[in-house]
Amino acid sequence: MRILTVNVNTTSSMTESIAEAARAVAEPGVEVVGLTPTFGAPSCEGNMESYLAAVGVMDAVLAYDEPFDAVIQAGFGEHGREGLQELLEQPVVDITEAAAAMATFVGRSYSVVTTLDRTVPLIEDRLRLAGLMERCASVRASNTSVLDLETDERAAVQSIVDEAQRAAREDRAEVIVLGCGGMAALEREVREQCGVPVVDGVAAAVTVAQSLVRLGLTTSKSRTYARPLPKNLKGFPFGR
Amino acid sequence: MRILTVNVNTTSSMTESIAEAARAVAEPGVEVVGLTPTFGAPSCEGNMESYLAAVGVMDAVLAYDEPFDAVIQAGFGEHGREGLQELLEQPVVDITEAAAAMATFVGRSYSVVTTLDRTVPLIEDRLRLAGLMERCASVRASNTSVLDLETDERAAVQSIVDEAQRAAREDRAEVIVLGCGGMAALEREVREQCGVPVVDGVAAAVTVAQSLVRLGLTTSKSRTYARPLPKNLKGFPFGR
Amino acid sequence: MRILTVNVNTTSSMTESIAEAARAVAEPGVEVVGLTPTFGAPSCEGNMESYLAAVGVMDAVLAYDEPFDAVIQAGFGEHGREGLQELLEQPVVDITEAAAAMATFVGRSYSVVTTLDRTVPLIEDRLRLAGLMERCASVRASNTSVLDLETDERAAVQSIVDEAQRAAREDRAEVIVLGCGGMAALEREVREQCGVPVVDGVAAAVTVAQSLVRLGLTTSKSRTYARPLPKNLKGFPFGR
Amino acid sequence: MRILTVNVNTTSSMTESIAEAARAVAEPGVEVVGLTPTFGAPSCEGNMESYLAAVGVMDAVLAYDEPFDAVIQAGFGEHGREGLQELLEQPVVDITEAAAAMATFVGRSYSVVTTLDRTVPLIEDRLRLAGLMERCASVRASNTSVLDLETDERAAVQSIVDEAQRAAREDRAEVIVLGCGGMAALEREVREQCGVPVVDGVAAAVTVAQSLVRLGLTTSKSRTYARPLPKNLKGFPFGR
Amino acid sequence: MRILTVNVNTTSSMTESIAEAARAVAEPGVEVVGLTPTFGAPSCEGNMESYLAAVGVMDAVLAYDEPFDAVIQAGFGEHGREGLQELLEQPVVDITEAAAAMATFVGRSYSVVTTLDRTVPLIEDRLRLAGLMERCASVRASNTSVLDLETDERAAVQSIVDEAQRAAREDRAEVIVLGCGGMAALEREVREQCGVPVVDGVAAAVTVAQSLVRLGLTTSKSRTYARPLPKNLKGFPFGR
Amino acid sequence: MRILTVNVNTTSSMTESIAEAARAVAEPGVEVVGLTPTFGAPSCEGNMESYLAAVGVMDAVLAYDEPFDAVIQAGFGEHGREGLQELLEQPVVDITEAAAAMATFVGRSYSVVTTLDRTVPLIEDRLRLAGLMERCASVRASNTSVLDLETDERAAVQSIVDEAQRAAREDRAEVIVLGCGGMAALEREVREQCGVPVVDGVAAAVTVAQSLVRLGLTTSKSRTYARPLPKNLKGFPFGR
Repeated sequence: MRILTVNVNTTSSMTESIAEAARAVAEPGVEVVGLTPTFGAPSCEGNMESYLAAVGVMDAVLAYDEPFDAVIQAGFGEHGREGLQELLEQPVVDITEAAAAMATFVGRSYSVVTTLDRTVPLIEDRLRLAGLMERCASVRASNTSVLDLETDERAAVQSIVDEAQRAAREDRAEVIVLGCGGMAALEREVREQCGVPVVDGVAAAVTVAQSLVRLGLTTSKSRTYARPLPKNLKGFPFGR
Repeated sequence: MRILTVNVNTTSSMTESIAEAARAVAEPGVEVVGLTPTFGAPSCEGNMESYLAAVGVMDAVLAYDEPFDAVIQAGFGEHGREGLQELLEQPVVDITEAAAAMATFVGRSYSVVTTLDRTVPLIEDRLRLAGLMERCASVRASNTSVLDLETDERAAVQSIVDEAQRAAREDRAEVIVLGCGGMAALEREVREQCGVPVVDGVAAAVTVAQSLVRLGLTTSKSRTYARPLPKNLKGFPFGR
Repeated sequence: MRILTVNVNTTSSMTESIAEAARAVAEPGVEVVGLTPTFGAPSCEGNMESYLAAVGVMDAVLAYDEPFDAVIQAGFGEHGREGLQELLEQPVVDITEAAAAMATFVGRSYSVVTTLDRTVPLIEDRLRLAGLMERCASVRASNTSVLDLETDERAAVQSIVDEAQRAAREDRAEVIVLGCGGMAALEREVREQCGVPVVDGVAAAVTVAQSLVRLGLTTSKSRTYARPLPKNLKGFPFGR
Repeated sequence: MRILTVNVNTTSSMTESIAEAARAVAEPGVEVVGLTPTFGAPSCEGNMESYLAAVGVMDAVLAYDEPFDAVIQAGFGEHGREGLQELLEQPVVDITEAAAAMATFVGRSYSVVTTLDRTVPLIEDRLRLAGLMERCASVRASNTSVLDLETDERAAVQSIVDEAQRAAREDRAEVIVLGCGGMAALEREVREQCGVPVVDGVAAAVTVAQSLVRLGLTTSKSRTYARPLPKNLKGFPFGR
Repeated sequence: MRILTVNVNTTSSMTESIAEAARAVAEPGVEVVGLTPTFGAPSCEGNMESYLAAVGVMDAVLAYDEPFDAVIQAGFGEHGREGLQELLEQPVVDITEAAAAMATFVGRSYSVVTTLDRTVPLIEDRLRLAGLMERCASVRASNTSVLDLETDERAAVQSIVDEAQRAAREDRAEVIVLGCGGMAALEREVREQCGVPVVDGVAAAVTVAQSLVRLGLTTSKSRTYARPLPKNLKGFPFGR
Repeated sequence: MRILTVNVNTTSSMTESIAEAARAVAEPGVEVVGLTPTFGAPSCEGNMESYLAAVGVMDAVLAYDEPFDAVIQAGFGEHGREGLQELLEQPVVDITEAAAAMATFVGRSYSVVTTLDRTVPLIEDRLRLAGLMERCASVRASNTSVLDLETDERAAVQSIVDEAQRAAREDRAEVIVLGCGGMAALEREVREQCGVPVVDGVAAAVTVAQSLVRLGLTTSKSRTYARPLPKNLKGFPFGR
């Protein structure tokens, strides 16, 4: 089984971290391939960048010319999953949705802890459209940027732990979802300090993708995700 | 990894069918153990029987004295999952919820096709409490009983296929969920005749349970599913 | 008119308190009979115990062999009402639902004040399924146990009054619902200290049961609460 | 105990029918007094007339100078209940809300069958604001006017029965609510022909009003229904 | 184009302020006519007064015997818009709804800041019925009366600014709606101190009314707002 | 005042039709400028094409180097409005949202009639995120393509009229919204044949944009639509 994990930004070191996190949880025999868009922003922290990501991710997958079994869109709260689903028969798994879905199996309510406050609405909208808001206690921001997580790790981690503790105490969250593609390494620390289960989106998405493949499920082509009609597109995909 | 699949009724032949369906999708190295309650009804088709099942299932799991990694409650739309979650650290997966959650990854909306009309409200309530109703297009009954599925198979299958086709056409369901623990064998036929993905609850629950174990997730003990306080229970568990 | 008030736990002194509270509000000529389950927990404070109660209550009612006109399930936020409704033609009234319904006639929003934090989700779920959450401002826990109410009365009462005042001030509750079968005696004190109407569940349920009998209403048998099909149940009812 | 049943229109013969229906279900010792507004329309079938009724009803109650214990606003889906609640300490019961609340105790879902199609939105809005829409399966109109019920009784009754049967069969209503103040006499016929419980609003409101008085509940004055500040009103109340 | 701006209270100085605010934003060539009801309260701060306003406003419009193109009901959170819509072909615009609708075009969520706490529920109900609550972050009261705004202006303005700032900071409102017909003059100050767009209801309603006229839209007469049937009304309209 | 109307597809003849429809309703002195993306599909009928449009529209607006006062995104149910809002201070109006908002002022509920069935989910999602679904009776497809509207006009028009009539009759829609950027010319015919008001998205958006400019409202920069942080974007905007 081969699973593509597509980064939503153009930073290839993040693609590599994501693929590592994916491999850590993949079943034996599953190959994880990381893809990096050639179009878009070095990190996604808002709607404009997220729309670029939607297009960049579709392009990266279309440019991949080997067979594969499932695709993971590895951005938290990003636009674009529905576009990929139109283009492919294989299952497409968004890490936001995978994390939230897994969280609800081990607690009555969950909170997402993300980086910047401005990305909270994007995450809420994605959860709402996916029908996963009802058991969401809150989406909280630690006000660390994606970049901070790489550079100023200690302070960034602490602010995330603090916010997770507030979610558990004030919002009654029984599970914490790490709301950023690059937070996988924090799972253990947050769990130990908060005393509740912690879900990382990339890891959750890998197990969901594996599940869908194992169940023989493919994307329904009956209506919303039917293949696009053949048309003369201008400028897309990029490489042609 | 050992997964318990607990039947909700007292009919051991159904327990065996369920375990078979589970084994068909389990990863290599996963042992599936079927448990049958010694308390309850030979089939669950209403609230009274479902409440008996809730207690019978808890008793069956408490009576099992070997180690295990996850529990699947293999009844569609039945009461009881929350009770088990209080008693255990291991993940507990309800097949209704697992099927609905998996369905939403491959289509925008899903319909459940179940047996008797009187079980529809139970399924709707379970999905509502689980926060999974928003993408549910409908819950439809084929008016075949659980028993019909075993005896009068041809007619029963046809009525289920008919109802699934109505769900796809009239309710705009993009995925069909088989709404009964004993419908696993129909998955292929319904899929071929309806042209949309079909999800069986037991199979979905096995992959979800595997995912949770692989992710190292256990039931949150912070509030709703905290261990019961030690008390003098009367008459429970049954065997002691 | 004879009304059965069924305790959800096995403590007969509580059954007696409940029956007393019921008699205090019953119309002249109404006989109140208290029933105690022989199966279950000495107090219900979580899902496992609540599922035992669901079965214990059904058993206690089935074991009662005199005629009666209505049944009150006297546990706050407990499972089981729907099972009783299948078994009976007579109206079945859950005290949680009765209290909430009455509260909405005298204020725009109500809050429930209950004992332990872990029972809050049970109450919320019951109100949600009953369609009564929309005007619920909050469900708050005073962190006193059911037992505290009997032993350490002064401190327990104060913590309940404190929480009710917070509900009125912070959550804008215009009515307080006492969220425990054994809080009837507190009604006056909470009302005087909070300045808003206070509803006790048992008392509310008695007047609702009387109303339904007087209106000639019986449980609808058309679908959800149709009589169970005759089947060979194992181990239930207990006494036979 | 004295209960005022206030008609919403200016037709005193309807006031009398309403009071009769109320007396039929009142406890021994309860006096029912019918009031007719001197302002408004001879029947209420739309928003303009309903707003006139809101004012006419408040005026009629203010003009009544004997003591009373509760007020019933006997119009189905009409504006005005909240205004009365500001003016009074005594409980105010709207027949729409009383009927819907009672219906939910004997079935999982209910449908309202009313007269004209144009009154459906008014009923829906009232139920929505009262938090009672969640278990409402549908509001259906039989396209008979309030007047038809008095003159062309046979055809009017049949069209109401037909609509009730459709609600039970197509909308899965388990209880029927008669959606007009003047339908009390149809209760038996609709019940017998539909096979489900039938609730009349006036009768339901009487038992709810009795319940509230018996429970010692009065309208919360903490916020929404606080007494109006003293002001110089122009033209109201009418008689002064 | 002639637009009627109808005050909801009987204070003609407020009618004049409202008309001034309307004229400030009207297109060239639009005539704004202010109407004052002869029935009702000098200010509307609760349900009783609001129901009087509903009738007073309908009467004032019926008494106006010149042609006009649209009507603005210039009370925030008041009853009555639906009644006017039945009586007229011309568009009727409620300032609450106009302000909320405009606010959603420039921010993801808005908060309303109004005067008295007791008017908050009225505003919430109006927004709920209009389908505009979903993006409403909060409705907050500054606890200044309508009168304070005229007399003790400095302190009143400050308390409104304070509440608006809390809405922006604590409730995440991205836009502030001024929740009172007489707050138009505060728009600039609140905006400058809060750093978010501020919407005044009267101004918003004028532009919405102009839009509807320009689009050639008239009130739909197909069902809810169909003309009232001809009937013998008692006491209404007042002048006849 | 200058308003940009940005087409979502790359077909410049449609851009011209849209601009014409906009000019027909614009106030005197308003200049309407039509923009055509250089990136994307010749028509937008699905998620993939819609994500391309989101990027193409942002690019087209960024490439426009004259001053302007507001932007209209002239695609029905398309992605992208939030991205534009981040980039601009000026108001951004989506035609889907403008049409729905205007429709609710002249009727209690509206239905959208669009072209292809596969675009229905996109429209529903956009309305849901905008908080405008509550008064939406239905979104219906006539199964004509955007192209059919240009070529086979008679049959296309008839199928749209038919669907609008079904919406009015079966879904109780009191207003019809034309769910496609290129349907403006049908407004009169649909209105005359259905007997309810009809709203065209482009026209509605023009009046909303004019309103926002006249009210001095600009896009809130406090959170969701804050300006993107400066970053090294790859490949965007296209022309540089």
